[in-house]
Amino acid sequence: MTTAALRPVYFLSDSTGITAETLGNTLLTQFPVDNFDRVTIPFITTAEQARSVVRTIDGLAATGPQPLVFSTAVSSEIRQILAGCKGVIVDLIGTHVGVLEQALGAPASGEPGRAHGLGNAARYQSRMAAVEYAMEHDDGQSLRALEKAQVILVAPSRCGKTPTTMYLALQHGIFAANFPLVDEDFQHDGLPKPLRPFVSKCFGLSSNPLRLSQIRTERRPSSPYASLRQCGFELRSAEQLYVSHRIPYLNSATVSVEEMAATILQRMNLKH
Amino acid sequence: MTTAALRPVYFLSDSTGITAETLGNTLLTQFPVDNFDRVTIPFITTAEQARSVVRTIDGLAATGPQPLVFSTAVSSEIRQILAGCKGVIVDLIGTHVGVLEQALGAPASGEPGRAHGLGNAARYQSRMAAVEYAMEHDDGQSLRALEKAQVILVAPSRCGKTPTTMYLALQHGIFAANFPLVDEDFQHDGLPKPLRPFVSKCFGLSSNPLRLSQIRTERRPSSPYASLRQCGFELRSAEQLYVSHRIPYLNSATVSVEEMAATILQRMNLKH
Repeated sequence: MTTAALRPVYFLSDSTGITAETLGNTLLTQFPVDNFDRVTIPFITTAEQARSVVRTIDGLAATGPQPLVFSTAVSSEIRQILAGCKGVIVDLIGTHVGVLEQALGAPASGEPGRAHGLGNAARYQSRMAAVEYAMEHDDGQSLRALEKAQVILVAPSRCGKTPTTMYLALQHGIFAANFPLVDEDFQHDGLPKPLRPFVSKCFGLSSNPLRLSQIRTERRPSSPYASLRQCGFELRSAEQLYVSHRIPYLNSATVSVEEMAATILQRMNLKH
Repeated sequence: MTTAALRPVYFLSDSTGITAETLGNTLLTQFPVDNFDRVTIPFITTAEQARSVVRTIDGLAATGPQPLVFSTAVSSEIRQILAGCKGVIVDLIGTHVGVLEQALGAPASGEPGRAHGLGNAARYQSRMAAVEYAMEHDDGQSLRALEKAQVILVAPSRCGKTPTTMYLALQHGIFAANFPLVDEDFQHDGLPKPLRPFVSKCFGLSSNPLRLSQIRTERRPSSPYASLRQCGFELRSAEQLYVSHRIPYLNSATVSVEEMAATILQRMNLKH
C-alpha cells in the first residue's frame, strides 16, 4: 500500500495561534479530505522569525504537496513576509482589514493587538477570580458563597458540571458554582435546601442513561453507581426536579463544554 | 457633552460564537476607536433565525451608525441570508472558501462543521479526562500520579499555576499537574523530593515581587505571606531553583494564561 504524502497545514500567529487553529480547522472540515499534517507556530513576532517560517514552508513546497498556511498575524510587516511564502496563504486578518478601514474611515494600525493577551486588565483579573471561585465551589464544596454565583450548575454526578463550570470561568469570566444532585435530593419534591434561595440562578444538566453509565463505569466499573438502572433513575428524577422548579436544562450527552457554556450564557442572559 | 451613538458590532455564528468574537475583536483592536456596542448571537442554525438577525441589524442600520457584522457561519444558506443584511459584513468563513476549493481541488460542503463541538470524540474525551486530572492534582493535592503528567507546573503560591493548568487541560487536552513551592523547599539546594524523578517534565512560573504582593494582599491583607519582602524572597529562590535544575520558566506577571499555555506547549514540545 502506498500512502500519498500528507499535505502540511501551518497555523501561524504572532500570538497564541488558537484562533488560527480554530478557524483554519473549521474551514478544513468543509472538505472531504483529512490527509493533513498540522503544525502550529505561535509567537511569530519578529521579521527574522517570519522569514525562518517562510524558509521551512518553501522547503516543504519544493518537495511535496503545497502547504496550506492559515495566519492570524496582525503586524503588517510580518504579514507581508508570510505572504511571500510558496504555500497557499489564507490571511485571516489582512483579508478583512480593507473593509473595516473603509467602514471605520481610519487606517488599521498594523500593530499586533493581543486578543489572547492580558488585554483589558480588569476583565482579565475577573476571569482569574472566576477560576479561583470555580475551584473553591466545585462539587458543592463550599455552599456559603452560592449567593456570589452568577449561575449554579445542578446535575447528578458526571454530567459535565465541572468542566462546564471551568470553561464558563476561564473563557467567559463567569462566576459559576455547581451543585451535585444525589439520591437524597430525590426523596422529596423540594429543591435541595442550599439551592432554594437561588432557584433563579440554577441551570440543570442531564445526559442519556447509556452515556452516563459508560462514563461512570470508567470511574467505578461494575458498581451500582454506574449501573444503567441507577443512571436512568437519577436522570429521570433530575429532569423532573428541573421541570417542576422551572429550571432550564440541557442534555450534555451530545454537546461540548464550549457549546454548553455558550448555551448557558444565552439562556441565562449572562453578560461576560 | 453629546455622545455619538455607539456603533453596533455583531458576532454571528452557527456554533458558539467564540471564534467570531476573538477574530472580530482582534480586527477591531487595529483601529483607534472603541465606541462599539458588542452583541454575540451563537447557534444561528436555521434560515428563519438568520432572517430574524438580519431584521434586527437592518433596523439598527436604518436609525444609527452602520453595524459591523463578523460572521463565522459555515452553512452556505445561512451565509447568503446574512450577506443580505444592511451591516458591513466580514464573512470570516465564506471569504476564504474559494482559495481552499482551488487548492484542494474539491468544492466546500457548505455544511456546518463544529470547531467547538464534540468533534473527534476521542480527542474530546481526552480533554475532559485532562480537566478531571487537573482538578485532582491541583496544588500538589495528589502526588501519586505525577508520573502520568505531561507537564508539572512548579511555582510559589499565586503565580498562576492553577488557571494555567486548567487552560492546558480544557483547551489543549494536556495532562498538567502543579506543585507549590514553599519556604521549606528553599532551605536546601535540591529539588523537592516528589519532583526529583520528573525534573524533565517541570516548568517553572515566576512573577514580579510587586505584582505577587498585590495579588497575595487581596487574599490575605497585611500578612507576612503578602509582604514584598517575602514575595521577593520566594521568587528569587524559585528562580535559582529553576536555573540550577535547568527547569525552563517564565514570568507570569505580564502574560495571560492563554499565552503561558501556548509558551509551555512550545517550550516543552507538547503535542495536543
